[in-house]
Amino acid sequence: MARPRQDRAVRTRAAILHAAAEVFDELGFSGASVSKIIARADATQGAMYFHFKSKEDLARAVMNEQGEGIVMPEGEPGLQHLIDITLHLATELQSNVLLRAGVRLAVEQGEFGVQDDTAYQEWAARFHEQLVAARDRGELLPEVNERELAWVLVSCYTGTQLFSQVSTNRADLPERVALLWRYLLPGVATPEARARLVTGPGAAGTARR
Amino acid sequence: MARPRQDRAVRTRAAILHAAAEVFDELGFSGASVSKIIARADATQGAMYFHFKSKEDLARAVMNEQGEGIVMPEGEPGLQHLIDITLHLATELQSNVLLRAGVRLAVEQGEFGVQDDTAYQEWAARFHEQLVAARDRGELLPEVNERELAWVLVSCYTGTQLFSQVSTNRADLPERVALLWRYLLPGVATPEARARLVTGPGAAGTARR
Repeated sequence: MARPRQDRAVRTRAAILHAAAEVFDELGFSGASVSKIIARADATQGAMYFHFKSKEDLARAVMNEQGEGIVMPEGEPGLQHLIDITLHLATELQSNVLLRAGVRLAVEQGEFGVQDDTAYQEWAARFHEQLVAARDRGELLPEVNERELAWVLVSCYTGTQLFSQVSTNRADLPERVALLWRYLLPGVATPEARARLVTGPGAAGTARR
Repeated sequence: MARPRQDRAVRTRAAILHAAAEVFDELGFSGASVSKIIARADATQGAMYFHFKSKEDLARAVMNEQGEGIVMPEGEPGLQHLIDITLHLATELQSNVLLRAGVRLAVEQGEFGVQDDTAYQEWAARFHEQLVAARDRGELLPEVNERELAWVLVSCYTGTQLFSQVSTNRADLPERVALLWRYLLPGVATPEARARLVTGPGAAGTARR
């Protein structure tokens, strides 16, 4: 008998989290309120406080679960797959509300008195995984340190999406991510690997050899 | 007779702006209040509203004047000077309150309903100036587009300082900026120029040939 109740709790939590993401994405942290989030989720106050202690707690959950549920492009792990992931994230940032809100809160977290690099570190870990595969495939230059480069990529990506958001509401983000790779790859990939890599926007998920 | 009054007005505006930067740097936009800023500046409400219409107006001024008054390292325009500027800004971001607050507000501007890329564009223009000089000196690879690269640099720098701030309160920012250059330079500078460039933290302002 415990199972259906648990399933329902999971669904309720997910509905509240999604509603919170929508409200944070539209209004930011200070414009959002627990009552707006409860109304948007069509949940009860009791359910809300069962899962989340406060607006801060909700914001932290949205921030740190920003990458969950994203369907990543298929592909063999390695540099091309890493490029495809970053291009895919650029389009997700235009439409995926949990990712958008999570990124917004991670960037603006100073505004609600939080200093938490979990979201940054999780992206660094995901990028690092691809770089380790790229190393195994002989795609990286000998002087590349996979861990350092993962930080550099997360840093550059964070700033790229922020500048693009402020300038164009992220309309030009895929082009800017492709541009970033154009300038980074010569310090990252072997000439042989570079000759094979596709970095243009729209490359993600397209067939290639 | 107009001159001394004008000088005083300029000084009063500067004092209010500096006080606003301190308060925004400590408390962020939503934590700051006009009354706290007036008290910190030791100014009158009349003087404050003569120069700035509102807290939003003050925030915009701090954001868009963030780079003013920074004493940049000396040097011939070009790639080394650009690197020195970015390393110098990394240490300024640890202590210069107008720059710190301006960058914080530029990053968190969504929180107060602003979408204004002036600050980003101004840094891009400053970086572009150095890249044009670098091109004249033959330091850039033929495939580099100075304007695009200036955007890429501002993007990467913005994210680097943000990740460093969230992770270490910017304690490791100079090292992270040096690291960024290590990965970017192969796609930017000719091998001859790269052999001469110094990117380590602490390089800014030191004598070199």
